[in-house]
Amino acid sequence: MKQILIFDTTLRDGSQGVGVSFTTEDKIKIARVLDSFGVSYVEGGWPGSGPKDDLFFEQMKKSPLKRAKLTAFGCTRRKDKKTSEDETLRAIIKSGVKTVCIFGKAWDLHVKCALKTTNEENLKMIYESIAFLKSKKLEVLFDAEHYFDGYKSNKRYALKVIKTAITAGANIVCLCETNGGMLPSDIQSIVKETRSAFPNVKFGIHAHNDSDCAVANSIAAIEEGCILAQGTVNGIGERCGNTNLCSLVPALQIKRNYDCIPKKSMRKLSELSIYVDEIANIVPNDSDPYVGRNAFAHKAGVHVSAIKNNPETYEHINPLTIGNERRILVSDLAGKSNVVSKAIEMAIGIEDAPEKVKEIIDTVKEKEHNGYQYEDADASFFLLTKKAFGTFKSFFNLKGYRVSVEKDINGNIISEATIKLDINGKEEHTVAEGDGPVNALDNCLRKALINYYPAVKNIFLTDFKVRVVNRDATTAAKVRVLIESSDSSKKWGTIGVSENIIDASWQALTDSVEYKLLK
Amino acid sequence: MKQILIFDTTLRDGSQGVGVSFTTEDKIKIARVLDSFGVSYVEGGWPGSGPKDDLFFEQMKKSPLKRAKLTAFGCTRRKDKKTSEDETLRAIIKSGVKTVCIFGKAWDLHVKCALKTTNEENLKMIYESIAFLKSKKLEVLFDAEHYFDGYKSNKRYALKVIKTAITAGANIVCLCETNGGMLPSDIQSIVKETRSAFPNVKFGIHAHNDSDCAVANSIAAIEEGCILAQGTVNGIGERCGNTNLCSLVPALQIKRNYDCIPKKSMRKLSELSIYVDEIANIVPNDSDPYVGRNAFAHKAGVHVSAIKNNPETYEHINPLTIGNERRILVSDLAGKSNVVSKAIEMAIGIEDAPEKVKEIIDTVKEKEHNGYQYEDADASFFLLTKKAFGTFKSFFNLKGYRVSVEKDINGNIISEATIKLDINGKEEHTVAEGDGPVNALDNCLRKALINYYPAVKNIFLTDFKVRVVNRDATTAAKVRVLIESSDSSKKWGTIGVSENIIDASWQALTDSVEYKLLK
Repeated sequence: MKQILIFDTTLRDGSQGVGVSFTTEDKIKIARVLDSFGVSYVEGGWPGSGPKDDLFFEQMKKSPLKRAKLTAFGCTRRKDKKTSEDETLRAIIKSGVKTVCIFGKAWDLHVKCALKTTNEENLKMIYESIAFLKSKKLEVLFDAEHYFDGYKSNKRYALKVIKTAITAGANIVCLCETNGGMLPSDIQSIVKETRSAFPNVKFGIHAHNDSDCAVANSIAAIEEGCILAQGTVNGIGERCGNTNLCSLVPALQIKRNYDCIPKKSMRKLSELSIYVDEIANIVPNDSDPYVGRNAFAHKAGVHVSAIKNNPETYEHINPLTIGNERRILVSDLAGKSNVVSKAIEMAIGIEDAPEKVKEIIDTVKEKEHNGYQYEDADASFFLLTKKAFGTFKSFFNLKGYRVSVEKDINGNIISEATIKLDINGKEEHTVAEGDGPVNALDNCLRKALINYYPAVKNIFLTDFKVRVVNRDATTAAKVRVLIESSDSSKKWGTIGVSENIIDASWQALTDSVEYKLLK
Repeated sequence: MKQILIFDTTLRDGSQGVGVSFTTEDKIKIARVLDSFGVSYVEGGWPGSGPKDDLFFEQMKKSPLKRAKLTAFGCTRRKDKKTSEDETLRAIIKSGVKTVCIFGKAWDLHVKCALKTTNEENLKMIYESIAFLKSKKLEVLFDAEHYFDGYKSNKRYALKVIKTAITAGANIVCLCETNGGMLPSDIQSIVKETRSAFPNVKFGIHAHNDSDCAVANSIAAIEEGCILAQGTVNGIGERCGNTNLCSLVPALQIKRNYDCIPKKSMRKLSELSIYVDEIANIVPNDSDPYVGRNAFAHKAGVHVSAIKNNPETYEHINPLTIGNERRILVSDLAGKSNVVSKAIEMAIGIEDAPEKVKEIIDTVKEKEHNGYQYEDADASFFLLTKKAFGTFKSFFNLKGYRVSVEKDINGNIISEATIKLDINGKEEHTVAEGDGPVNALDNCLRKALINYYPAVKNIFLTDFKVRVVNRDATTAAKVRVLIESSDSSKKWGTIGVSENIIDASWQALTDSVEYKLLK
């Protein structure tokens, strides 16, 4: 098995993604997770670019990574300046890393338009910067920025840049597809030609996803002999993002038998993906290959019935291999197989009552028509089937609620909720405050129920999402509230839909509580 | 220029995407837009699968597409049944289309596990179904389902399936990469071998994105001689989705000089993408290649300063070519260039006041730390800079508000807001009801302002998004409210962040109104 070095740049290029903003603490956490996951390089940031990155390297010095090489990013020295006086290069030395990745221009257009210097001076900048870092005993990776565009527009100069980097002592030369516009056959031919010009040099690939081909371009480069691939977790990065390591690593290791990460780490791939999204506070892209929530979700009735006989029929790999799981969805496209499979998954016992299946499918269709969606609200679906079976008995009946939010002239805000419930024939009338109206309502509901159902104490609201369902300007907008709740051992999702955000929240809250009480 | 037929299956395979549910009316709208956009085939649905699709074909008969071939989807006849009595095939005939695409099994595993029949009977089903449809004078496309998996596991049988379809009279044979697990080099070699076995046959490609390679796989197949590509707008579809036509079409036409759609349509690509997401009620994926909101968004300071000299430095194509636009972002990674460019874009005049730039960057950084995010809230950023310049004068000052939502025992809900404002020294105290608390607050605010500022009449809330910002269980969750407003001519975004959803909405509402009044 040939080894491919995985170079993670989530903390550097990834942080250039729209909406991504890591704190120093975030960076440290992610670096450690990447280290234990088993990538070869963790590019931590750009020393000297700001206090956040400087603090990061400072902290990492005290408690180094165990396995991966912590790498600092930077650029070649400024034009017409001395290398030894260059701030960026000095910051790199100061950061205390043993590996550095610096970028230099490989496209003459950039030398002219961005650097505003001569082609000769650019080569000098590259040579002297690498030689300087090598003299400080660092491992140096050279990022040949815009290499592919450069190669297409001025092949001779692009090759000269590579030659200069090698002569100066660069350990690995990374060919960067910075603008992300190439297609795999471009990468294939340019890498092939470059490698034949420098047969003994170690090359890496750095791709972006502007053509929707970042992963394919990286695979093409590896298949042409590159030995290192740069990328980010979930493909976060500038514009359309970088090569998604969550797609690249399983492709190389599972499908092409390269050695990228320790074998046992593969099962932690989905967890890694969720972890980085959580820290970056990004809503996960459910349709992401391999690790996405929908990557092994089956909706069409024909697929579900085939899957039941043999999962291989509609799954390219076993989801467990990369720590993901199969999902059977209930929707208006659902055939009987979906409803039955879902019910079995939830142990509802529907398989013995085929006459109920149609009734449930019809209810789901009608509810979906009104804006409900059960794909993310398993617990609400569970209650719906219970109701269809007539086996559901309400734990309480609502006689009324009132929620108010009041802000005074000093900016103080008070949120208060009152609820009147009928619990087993007894009226409970409670009041509670909260951080906001939904929190007040939630607190008030628990207060009303706790003496009857002590289990409500252990429910936590872990997420709350709101979305306008119909954007048709002619009618009042409906909002859909999705609540995620958890107790110490599991999570469940519930849904509410209403023109009124408070009432939609109320529906989702009561479903959450009733689900917990039923279980 | 070689022609490539674009076969759109948004309405069929696309509707199998998680969270996608088209009404008949939606389908008709999308079919017409695709027709005027200029795809060659519009696959509308599966006749006989349900009332939704039957009604669709019924309606389309009355008012046919102008240019594209409306196509019905279906499958080969059921095993051991007569073709002429097969419900699916009869429904296709009844639908009144002139083109049909039927799928048959090309992988012997599926014949055994899904169809539960013999390899011989499967070939018969394919032959008889195609021959039957051809006898009814239909153009027949044959989808060889799981062709690539089939080819890898039993090459002889997969080729026999193709041979059977051709002998029966299929006009085009589409090689389907149904499970989406192949990499481009697999596609390359299998298409090459298949084409050399059947040099005179017209082949198409149908790919899925489970390996993050759907677009690259489709391009590889086209480069190997396929003449048709199937896909969906925005890549919606089962699991990780289908080939994204918004990525494939510009790659083929702009980068490889194939003829796919009318030249003038290319500028409507972004509009098409947004339109389908709107109708499908999908939150657009901002980092989508070509058409995504971030596809030409620049965040890193170095990129922005280079872009200002020459956009080609960090853009693989001109965003206008496909109807998208460049965005300069303001965030805590922003260098001076971003803030200045953004200000110029908004005509704030900051470029003459360099001393203010740092102040604004610092404010943005602090606000972002507290959960704000200006990338989607241009209007709030505009007000922030105005405030930094000291040129902003409030149109009103809040003295207090109260919002209440009350639900009675009959389920009736009343939402009411009262607001006390100081407007130019005069106190206004108003009350209004609404469909929900935010709507009530919005109505009440307008009611208070309308006599002073009649322009508020023409502001419409077009979108409302809520997200929990910090999911840290130890503190109260903050919510971020993003509001999109519009008047008859433009849209603007504003933001509010608070522990209280009502107060976050209030902030975003007042920013929206003040922005409109300033303009």
